Amino acid sequence: MTDRPKTPVLDRVSNPADLRSMSDEDLIRVADELRAETISAVSQTGGHLGAGLGVVELTVALHAVFDTPRDRLIWDVSHQCYPHKILTGRRDRIRTLRQKDGLSGFTKRSESPYDPFGAAHSSTSISAALGFTVARDLGGSPDPSLGDAIAVIGDGAMSAGMAYEAMNNAGHLGRRMFVILNDNEMSIAPPTGAMSSYLSRLYAGAPFQEFKAAAKGAVSMLPPPFQEGAKRAKELLKGLAVGGTLFEELGFSYLGPIDGHDMEQLLPILRTVRARATGPVLIHAITKKGKGFKPAESARDKGHATGKFDVLTGEQAKSKPNAPSYTSVFAKGLLAEAARDDRIVAVTAAMPDGTGLNLFAERYPSRCFDVGIAEQHGVTFSAGLAAGGMKPFAAIYSTFLQRGYDQVVHDVALQRLPVRFAIDRAGLVGADGATHAGAFDVAYLANLPGFVVMAASDEAELMHMVATAAAHDEGPIAFRFPRGEGTGVDLPERGEILEIGKGRIVAQGKGVAILNFGARMKEVTEAAEALSARGVTPTLADARFAKPLDHDLILKLAAEHEALITIEEGCVGGFGSHVAQLLSDEGVFDHGLRFRSMVLPDTFIDQASPEDMYAVARLNAEDIEAKVLEVMGVESLGRRA
Amino acid sequence: MTDRPKTPVLDRVSNPADLRSMSDEDLIRVADELRAETISAVSQTGGHLGAGLGVVELTVALHAVFDTPRDRLIWDVSHQCYPHKILTGRRDRIRTLRQKDGLSGFTKRSESPYDPFGAAHSSTSISAALGFTVARDLGGSPDPSLGDAIAVIGDGAMSAGMAYEAMNNAGHLGRRMFVILNDNEMSIAPPTGAMSSYLSRLYAGAPFQEFKAAAKGAVSMLPPPFQEGAKRAKELLKGLAVGGTLFEELGFSYLGPIDGHDMEQLLPILRTVRARATGPVLIHAITKKGKGFKPAESARDKGHATGKFDVLTGEQAKSKPNAPSYTSVFAKGLLAEAARDDRIVAVTAAMPDGTGLNLFAERYPSRCFDVGIAEQHGVTFSAGLAAGGMKPFAAIYSTFLQRGYDQVVHDVALQRLPVRFAIDRAGLVGADGATHAGAFDVAYLANLPGFVVMAASDEAELMHMVATAAAHDEGPIAFRFPRGEGTGVDLPERGEILEIGKGRIVAQGKGVAILNFGARMKEVTEAAEALSARGVTPTLADARFAKPLDHDLILKLAAEHEALITIEEGCVGGFGSHVAQLLSDEGVFDHGLRFRSMVLPDTFIDQASPEDMYAVARLNAEDIEAKVLEVMGVESLGRRA
Repeated sequence: MTDRPKTPVLDRVSNPADLRSMSDEDLIRVADELRAETISAVSQTGGHLGAGLGVVELTVALHAVFDTPRDRLIWDVSHQCYPHKILTGRRDRIRTLRQKDGLSGFTKRSESPYDPFGAAHSSTSISAALGFTVARDLGGSPDPSLGDAIAVIGDGAMSAGMAYEAMNNAGHLGRRMFVILNDNEMSIAPPTGAMSSYLSRLYAGAPFQEFKAAAKGAVSMLPPPFQEGAKRAKELLKGLAVGGTLFEELGFSYLGPIDGHDMEQLLPILRTVRARATGPVLIHAITKKGKGFKPAESARDKGHATGKFDVLTGEQAKSKPNAPSYTSVFAKGLLAEAARDDRIVAVTAAMPDGTGLNLFAERYPSRCFDVGIAEQHGVTFSAGLAAGGMKPFAAIYSTFLQRGYDQVVHDVALQRLPVRFAIDRAGLVGADGATHAGAFDVAYLANLPGFVVMAASDEAELMHMVATAAAHDEGPIAFRFPRGEGTGVDLPERGEILEIGKGRIVAQGKGVAILNFGARMKEVTEAAEALSARGVTPTLADARFAKPLDHDLILKLAAEHEALITIEEGCVGGFGSHVAQLLSDEGVFDHGLRFRSMVLPDTFIDQASPEDMYAVARLNAEDIEAKVLEVMGVESLGRRA
Repeated sequence: MTDRPKTPVLDRVSNPADLRSMSDEDLIRVADELRAETISAVSQTGGHLGAGLGVVELTVALHAVFDTPRDRLIWDVSHQCYPHKILTGRRDRIRTLRQKDGLSGFTKRSESPYDPFGAAHSSTSISAALGFTVARDLGGSPDPSLGDAIAVIGDGAMSAGMAYEAMNNAGHLGRRMFVILNDNEMSIAPPTGAMSSYLSRLYAGAPFQEFKAAAKGAVSMLPPPFQEGAKRAKELLKGLAVGGTLFEELGFSYLGPIDGHDMEQLLPILRTVRARATGPVLIHAITKKGKGFKPAESARDKGHATGKFDVLTGEQAKSKPNAPSYTSVFAKGLLAEAARDDRIVAVTAAMPDGTGLNLFAERYPSRCFDVGIAEQHGVTFSAGLAAGGMKPFAAIYSTFLQRGYDQVVHDVALQRLPVRFAIDRAGLVGADGATHAGAFDVAYLANLPGFVVMAASDEAELMHMVATAAAHDEGPIAFRFPRGEGTGVDLPERGEILEIGKGRIVAQGKGVAILNFGARMKEVTEAAEALSARGVTPTLADARFAKPLDHDLILKLAAEHEALITIEEGCVGGFGSHVAQLLSDEGVFDHGLRFRSMVLPDTFIDQASPEDMYAVARLNAEDIEAKVLEVMGVESLGRRA
């Protein structure tokens, strides 16, 4: 921990308008101080550091040149938005980033008028910017009136089809809008794909030095009179374009590549395009993720996400884990299976580290495929692999699998292809907040004919489910598990193959049965312990499968207890709803059953620790305890008055 | 009706291997006869005619040159697969296309080994082909062993981000595979977007005549000895590429454009690339949708989909409708609202006719946006429009909205942006079969916080829901309606604005209540009539909203009846599940309620008439009647023994 950096020029900026009266020299100082302030803030909060450091100059230049918030500035994914938040009236709260009741780690409409379009999933910014652009042209929002829309999007995000769809549409419509391609040759992992190579070739062909001189020429003709400058500017800008055919073929004027850390390039170029552009413009800026903070620059992930750290050394204060993470246990399980079966392959959509597939890729480089930020393709590519006789594991976070939903339905489920879905980050995820919540996967998978849907109640169960998925060739199978540490149970070397559609009784009790699906099991057990002290001894069962349901187990639990409570880390429409459907189909409700389904509430829950988020969701041990007491008609201790 | 065409050469083809021993002259004859046979078949069945006629030569050439089914031939969307089906052992059943128990209108793995990957939604073929390619290289399926993968994809399908994601990945991996870009400047509607213009420019720059000569040169060097030919082939093929930078930047070898109806170009080019290619190759073939059948060629949609017709005149045998279609009523309602509010805009993803937005586009061309086959972008573009103060109606079929699911969650729901979703083709759709079933939308939307989800029980209700959506500025709102004709009720000039979250009692009865959500209302009414003859008079209610639920109505129905049955045109996890959640939360099941939820069954249902499909699903009037009798303990008449 060190003192806060001295930031005399930045201190004069309470909102972006203050930048617009500053000299270029002062703007350069603002950028330097903003970098120091960003590092200082994230050292205290942890978070996404590298992306923000890479766009410090861009952030200052964009706010200095464009009339935000009237001009709509949209940060793609918005990992890089911390400097933007500092400049847009949120500096006083910047050290609450990603914390409970603090600033979101992402842009958020409800947080500031300077965040016209929230983000967190990749590659949405060009679509949103086009929406604002068309709305402006049709006389949309008067308050504040709509100016230009500017999307800032990384090269990694450009691998997503959605970005292409938006470029294709924007190029066709030909309206004035701006896309800043922030090319740092890095997303969370090094970007993959032909587009990435293409961008590198553009970069290789354009030395910055020449560009700098040209940019200086551009600034000389501004400010007005524009009459004379207009023609020169056009010629000049045309001369700047040294590549970019691909973007020009898609209808964009291409400018670049330019040095995204050089304000002497950024400011004149942005001023010129703002003054002159009549159609869609793409500015290709080369930046360095983690720029200006050595430990980030030299890190493998360029300081993508970090815990709290020491500003001088970069050393992160890591809390010692009590148990291996679910992610690492998945990786371990997959390696165990892959060693025995060379038809097992793995697919990630630009998240090799987050999914644990980096370990698989190290051991089996030819059997691991990073398809880029491309879940749609990733799912159907997996379906093709399965149709070709391989055993693909598609490892995709719950929230990102939403991107490939149609492909799951149409290419996998309809064809009953044995794609294995390893769904990490199921349930509430903590600091990443509502945008990353894995709330919906059970609801959107368990109604697909022929699917098998499992959830791990602890990390040993996860090992079993990996083995079960590897062995299941009859159709698609998914298993979900949460972010974070396991419970510390002993792990087998290799998982056991579970019987499909069979749950298990964990503890036999009476009166009330709790049927758990997934990682709330720990909370269920804790609740049961507290209940036993009050003379209530619930039967505890682990469903393992939301599909196919264990009819025998569920009907037996219903028959032998007065009350049945299901619990899951997901929303209505999932496990509990399938159980309710079974119970009603079988006429179990006809003569009375105290049935309750504990699910995520009908709200988006803001970031906090997962435990705090589950407290909001009322799915922690004390909530389960209270629910049991309520259902059994026993008065609660009222711990939650 | 005319006699079947004479097809002496085609008659010699019982499977594609027969083509491989034929002379090129005979192959040309096969193509001509195949075209005649396709026209004859579709004249009797109706279906997707234009696309197939456009690829007759391609189909013959691909099967003649490649070793199908060992080489995996994947038809994108597969509207164009009828000639392929005729050549691949299904000629005897080709006049059962799209009919109950007949051939699917699409490729289907379970139908033939020549259909290695089924399709129906656009733009999946390159991903699947890459999957097969990688599987081959890793020693996948031995039976039949894997050869080359060939994707045939239209220019319209190229507007989808998924195709770009796949190209990006395939270009990066650099493996030998083939993409045939079937450029007919037409998808269902004329394609839109910058990519489409780009393809036209490629085409404009390359006269076929030169190409034909070059292709003849190519054939002269085949068959082997290859030793000498290899170098010449390489040079020649290089010379053929007259454009296509964009594809080459993405890592593909580009060949074309060639005349896709000229076997003298197709055969040598395909033979050469098959003999020589070492990496991914894209062949750009120009074709004409509807080729060879004048009425199709001259139709606005190039004979995209047709009913039965007269082979000589092209005149379609149209059955007289009894009532306007839901689609047209939606269009009428939207026009009524748009006339009063110029902030209403409309977005379609390449389906202006199918969604009825063609009418809107005619009246308000500057307020209607066809974004291409790009649901991801379309949804977020709509979100941007809403954030900019407009009132966007995104008109997307239920099954295709799956493509934009993450965008619905992340860009619309999380930000509570008032995007209006007009969800056509809800429920079972008839001849398009399982791939187009709108089964899942209620389940994947009604669990999203802040969403309003409605379903129209008849076409007047649809008018009300359009008006309600137009008036609802507080957040996202969706309304679903089925394919086909309405019930014939009187239509208002303009819909009434419904109170959000309020259903209505349609008929007060006793004992049992039927709570309907959506267009099964007609069947419910019919069932009630049949029941009243047996002394059972159910209360009938129209929920209108799956979200927010009408708590008062539902709890009242539960309290005042012994049994409550919900019914919907959707799967488990939807309306009925939300009702069950409410009832269990409220403790209604504690003391007994005969609750049943009638939903689509847990199977994909093959094509037939919607009525027949709903019979399979057991959601027709007689099924409702039987369910009521069963729940009430009255013996059924056993009409379904």
